Amino acid sequence: MTQKQIIPEKLADILEKKGIAHVATVTPAGRPRTSPMWYEWDGERILLSHTKARAKYRDVLAHPRIALSITDPEDPYRYIEIRGSVEVEDDPEKTLIHRLAKKYRGVDRYTWDGPGDDRVIFKVTPERVAPNWG
Amino acid sequence: MTQKQIIPEKLADILEKKGIAHVATVTPAGRPRTSPMWYEWDGERILLSHTKARAKYRDVLAHPRIALSITDPEDPYRYIEIRGSVEVEDDPEKTLIHRLAKKYRGVDRYTWDGPGDDRVIFKVTPERVAPNWG
Repeated sequence: MTQKQIIPEKLADILEKKGIAHVATVTPAGRPRTSPMWYEWDGERILLSHTKARAKYRDVLAHPRIALSITDPEDPYRYIEIRGSVEVEDDPEKTLIHRLAKKYRGVDRYTWDGPGDDRVIFKVTPERVAPNWG
Repeated sequence: MTQKQIIPEKLADILEKKGIAHVATVTPAGRPRTSPMWYEWDGERILLSHTKARAKYRDVLAHPRIALSITDPEDPYRYIEIRGSVEVEDDPEKTLIHRLAKKYRGVDRYTWDGPGDDRVIFKVTPERVAPNWG
């Protein structure tokens, strides 16, 4: 079974929209943390852009698992929950955050990073998806 | 400092709206889980209604901590993140879910529980709030 197939067909459209992913991690102390983020769906994985300075980066290094929930921006009673493993990749050219700025803001470049903000990409491979009834 | 004061004044209005709280817990195995939920803000705590049958109930018994993020339903770029401890109370009369049905759906009673759905209330006391810049 490929990763793509675990996304129920009736929910897949949500991933194509400009929703906000509420991204949950586990802190090094074992506590939950969540925050809203832009995301990109590449057909197999959820991609998130993060700086190394933020707490969620340390969380993922300690516990390489992410859960996220996204409501349909056109209907908050439709939603998808995804849980999966995370791979972290450096993104020195900031390619993902620029694409996200295009998707969400319609601009070619993301210009809100500070000096020294090192970008990484969290690549989340879905393992569990809910609601599984679509 | 009372709990109320840790909510920055500039974000407090979000809690009064009909937003969706994305509620993150840690599973007994130490993994993150998140799902969208209705909530009530009583001025000091975030109240969530849950059934004992759902996984999040088992999560909270194992790790009595919740993180939640809520975007302003009128402006998805405004949001509040709250992390805190949880107390669980039985709610045999389903008082909270009926109030939530009133808040979100304008109906006097929540009529979508199945037989044997035992309701509990998660009372989340905020300990950390972000963004702390309001």
